[in-house]
This record gives sequence, structure tokens and C-alpha cells, in this order.
Amino acid sequence: MKMRKRNNVQIYGNGTTPIIFAHGFGCDQHIWEYVIPGFFDMYQVILFDYAGSGNSSAGSYSEERYSSVDGYAEDVIGIMEEMALTDAIFVGHSFSGMVGLKIALERPELLRSNIMLGASPRFLNEDGYKGGLEEEDLEKLLQMMDSDYRKWSKYMAELFLEEIDAPKMKEELEEMLADQSPEVTRSFAEVAFTLDMREKLKENTVPSLLLQSKKDSLVPPAAGEYLREHLPYSESVMLDAKGHAPHLSHPQEVTSLILDYIEQKLWKSS
Amino acid sequence: MKMRKRNNVQIYGNGTTPIIFAHGFGCDQHIWEYVIPGFFDMYQVILFDYAGSGNSSAGSYSEERYSSVDGYAEDVIGIMEEMALTDAIFVGHSFSGMVGLKIALERPELLRSNIMLGASPRFLNEDGYKGGLEEEDLEKLLQMMDSDYRKWSKYMAELFLEEIDAPKMKEELEEMLADQSPEVTRSFAEVAFTLDMREKLKENTVPSLLLQSKKDSLVPPAAGEYLREHLPYSESVMLDAKGHAPHLSHPQEVTSLILDYIEQKLWKSS
Repeated sequence: MKMRKRNNVQIYGNGTTPIIFAHGFGCDQHIWEYVIPGFFDMYQVILFDYAGSGNSSAGSYSEERYSSVDGYAEDVIGIMEEMALTDAIFVGHSFSGMVGLKIALERPELLRSNIMLGASPRFLNEDGYKGGLEEEDLEKLLQMMDSDYRKWSKYMAELFLEEIDAPKMKEELEEMLADQSPEVTRSFAEVAFTLDMREKLKENTVPSLLLQSKKDSLVPPAAGEYLREHLPYSESVMLDAKGHAPHLSHPQEVTSLILDYIEQKLWKSS
Repeated sequence: MKMRKRNNVQIYGNGTTPIIFAHGFGCDQHIWEYVIPGFFDMYQVILFDYAGSGNSSAGSYSEERYSSVDGYAEDVIGIMEEMALTDAIFVGHSFSGMVGLKIALERPELLRSNIMLGASPRFLNEDGYKGGLEEEDLEKLLQMMDSDYRKWSKYMAELFLEEIDAPKMKEELEEMLADQSPEVTRSFAEVAFTLDMREKLKENTVPSLLLQSKKDSLVPPAAGEYLREHLPYSESVMLDAKGHAPHLSHPQEVTSLILDYIEQKLWKSS
């Protein structure tokens, strides 16, 4: 089966420079809906669903392949190989920031730039590192998923969009989370929340932009700062946006910052 | 679950007039890939996969709902209602021509026009009616699906693209057929090939264009003529194309004829 069908790849826009938007844990490609139109004029916009998420093909997910960030990175690499893409701009939300990093480490020629939105190299706290989440917080989240997936979806949508007074938007996100496969999302959660890429950061050679919300319960400022300090070739911008889903809640700000970065920094330096 | 996700709805183009492209039996929305770019400038192009086909959501198919053309029509009506569409142009391939007719009969206000590509009101021969397929041909097809779905996919791709010397295109179609769920496609085949809409044709009130291949083993000229004669408000155009998949094999001719019809006949008559 072609990756195009397997990962429900959708291609938009009139440009030739490829820009790939990668959804994070619990979501699918529709999370980018309000951001992508800003890129249609000048870019080839590529959306996809990871195996097991969104409208990826039934049977494409296996717990084994997706037991680490590697399987997720292989999805993207497979799509890029099938489409014969190189020098793409990769925009990854949350966990997908580390998918982008994995690709940057393994296949740097594939990426012109890696743009991370609300990314973290490690979500769990440890001695001397503040990821934001205690082991017991994670246990509670996983238990909630097991006992009442729909309730968990509502809780998660609230957490993503904290302090944002937009009931319809929360409902949209809740529905997106609820529509995912509970089994896949449960495994995805364990992989995402126990990931630790801190030791790998120093190997990066791909220019990276870190977009960080002003307040984000899942990625506290300290985790964003850690990423900025330890990731070579990176720069960070603090958003006015709050919450863990600024592509949904503040699409214009996210769009502008990405376009500014690409057009004013990335092209000029090349 | 929203129809948008359920039926993997994709929206392209910069225009406001909605044009919905509906794939036929054994295919999915990608079959329209070479036709749709011709509509991006002036139309809102809507693609989708029927439940059970393509990348529709897992679990959206049920044999009961899709035991007749009604369930398929309900997919389209559901999408249109969710998107608040009316007066759309519907382009249906093969079986989907009759889906369009069903919508035209039930909800004429939804359709500005119904464009049928290689459609037939009845695929099976009967006394005094030449649909093209004998009961025993259908039995053989169904048996082949049961015993070797992959072999059937190859056979079907050959049948669709008969006399067209394009191995890569045949391979593409074979792969599309092979990627569908064998169980769903088996049920879909029975529904499509035993459908009989002849008695309903006279109730149509929606302007319809019938695009008919010069030679098509699945829809012989006699079936196309029957449709033209018995469907009020219809006109037919014979393509230079041969085979049952001119949207794949002759996309430019199909695109031009649809655009000519819409822009020169449909708008002028309104």
C-alpha cells in the first residue's frame, strides 16, 4: 500500500517548496485547518495522519512499530521518499517536534528546517529537569483514558485550551480526541509522555524554530528553555498565545511567525 | 462523529460553487486526482470516500445501511447537510451516477446538476434490456473476488481500462482496487451490479449530463442510450475515450466537457 493512502496524505497549495505539518498526540491533520490556508499561495502544503490516527488506513498501526518515536519518524520519511521530497520545512506540534528532530538526526538532507510548536524533549519531571508532568500525573491520565475515554477527551481538550474562553473550539478539540482510536491513543500517550530526547539534542544540524506558548501546562517555560539551550541551530519565539494548541486557538499568530521565519531568516541565510 | 471525518471529506479550490466528485464501486476519491485541478480556480471542489471505501473511518460501514443505493446517497446528503451546501454540481462515476439520481429524486434542492460518467440504470441484462452483464458473469466476478481478491483487482483494472496501453495506469488502478476492503467491496459489488433504477428515471427533475465512453464493457452503448431516452432533463455526450475509467485515462477530455457543460449550458439556462 502506498504511504499516500496509508497515511491519508493530502496535498494543497500552488507552490513548490514543500511544507509538512505534523499533528501531535491525540489529534489528526485537521488540527492544522486554520493555519494551512496562509501557505497555499507559495508552498506545497502536505498533511497526513500518523498510522492509527485520523483517517489513516485500517490496519496500518502496530504497537511494535510505534513503540518509540522511530516508527512515527518512519511514517514521515516514507511519505517524503514516496513523494521524492527533500529540503522540506517540517512543522511539528508537541510530540511531533521530536519526530522532526529524529528525522533531522537520521536524514538531515530531507529537512530545510524543523519548526516545533509546543515541543518538549521530555514531558516528565526528573531530578534537575522540569518537564511539567509527574509520574503520578501520567498514571492518572492513563487511568482516566482506560476508565472513560470520552471523559478523558473532555479533560484533555480543557487542558490543551486552558484559560481560553471558547466553548465551541474546546468542543471541536474534544471531538477530535474522542474520535481517535482509544487503544492507539493509549499507546501513543505512553510513547509521547515517556520520551526522552535530551541526550540527542546536541547532534542536531538542521535550523530549528521553537514556538512556545506563554503558558502551557503540558510544556512549561522551563522545558522550552531547556530545548532552546541544548538544541544547536535553534532560536525560539514566545507566542502571545496561551495553551498547548495555538495552531487551533491562535492560527494567525502561528502562521505569521512561521512565514516570517521562513521568508526573512531561512531564505536569507541560504 | 462528523461526516467530514467519517467520509474523509477533502475540500480544495478557491471558488464558491460546490462541485462534488463521487467515486464509483471499488475505488476511492483518488480516482479523481487528474480531473480536479481543472476546477480549483473557480469551484469549491469536494471529495470524499463512501463509508467502507478509501480512508473513511474504521467502523463507518455496515452491510445493512449500504444494502441499497440509499445508504450511499445518505452519505452524500449527510456531508452536504453538515457543510450547509445546496445547489451543488454532483459528478458521479458509474454506480455514483445512480447515487446522484437518488439524491436528485429525494432532495432536488441540493443539486444544481447531476453529471454522470459511465453510469447505467441497470448493469444486468434482462429481456428487452441490454445492461451488458449476464447473471452468470456477475456470479463469476463475485466468485473471483471470494477466491483471489488480488487477482480480481488485476482483472477489474484490465476491464476498466480495456484497450488502453498504459501499464502504469493499470497498475495504479489495480492497486486502488486491491487496497479496498475485500468484504466491503464484495457487498458493494452485489449492490451496484443488481441495482435497477429504470423505473425511477422518469421522476428526475435535475438537469443531467451523461458522459459515455465510446466503448465500455461495463456500460454498453445500449445502456447509455436507455438512460438518455428515459431520463428527463438529460443530455448525453459521447467521449473519444474508451473504457470505464475515463477520469483516469482521459482526464482532460472529461474536465473540458464538464466545464463546457457547466459554463455554457447550465449557467446560461439559469
